[in-house]
Amino acid sequence: MIVVGRAHELPAADISDGKTVTNTVKRVLIGPQQGAPNFIMRMFTLGEGGFSPYHTHPWEHEAFVLSGEGIVKGAEGEKHVSAGDFIFVPPNEEHQFLNSGKEAFEFLCIIPKSGEG
Amino acid sequence: MIVVGRAHELPAADISDGKTVTNTVKRVLIGPQQGAPNFIMRMFTLGEGGFSPYHTHPWEHEAFVLSGEGIVKGAEGEKHVSAGDFIFVPPNEEHQFLNSGKEAFEFLCIIPKSGEG
Repeated sequence: MIVVGRAHELPAADISDGKTVTNTVKRVLIGPQQGAPNFIMRMFTLGEGGFSPYHTHPWEHEAFVLSGEGIVKGAEGEKHVSAGDFIFVPPNEEHQFLNSGKEAFEFLCIIPKSGEG
Repeated sequence: MIVVGRAHELPAADISDGKTVTNTVKRVLIGPQQGAPNFIMRMFTLGEGGFSPYHTHPWEHEAFVLSGEGIVKGAEGEKHVSAGDFIFVPPNEEHQFLNSGKEAFEFLCIIPKSGEG
């Protein structure tokens, strides 16, 4: 069965820890619950000043900016991104997403199933 | 290396055949060329009256509507979608995307690597 839903109507999990992650909520749009066999679509919303951890892991990110402005920080420096930009973070690459604007910085981030849970 | 790019600046391939696909262009945002190991992010833009083929295949779609309005047609009927909606098409599920509005209907569609070329 084809599953359709409005992303913003899904419950948002606050994943902030006040240290490595700030002012950030996460929604799982398409994952094992919907029957996704291979990869998981998540949406992250970073409020003003929000950031994800600067970290690395063995799986890749394929991301797409939906709204707002941000910075993608990596081993080779910082890149500015805004709505309409795609971002590929290869496996084992250090990375961090930061909101650099006043509005919410929102992006999709797809990972292989091995990366979640 | 982290790869960042503006989706609309990528070359668009016209995949219309005038029969099963009409008024549709495709961009590959993140794929084997960028080193994507597992899944491929594509963006489709359907002009007024545009549609993708009504078909089925052994791989899934994880899609997200970026702009415009459309219909997702399947074995169980039609569902209206618009910007901010996610769509999961399981493997082997019949499906078709149609633009139902005046503006471009644009969506991301991620598939496992096995599904492309």
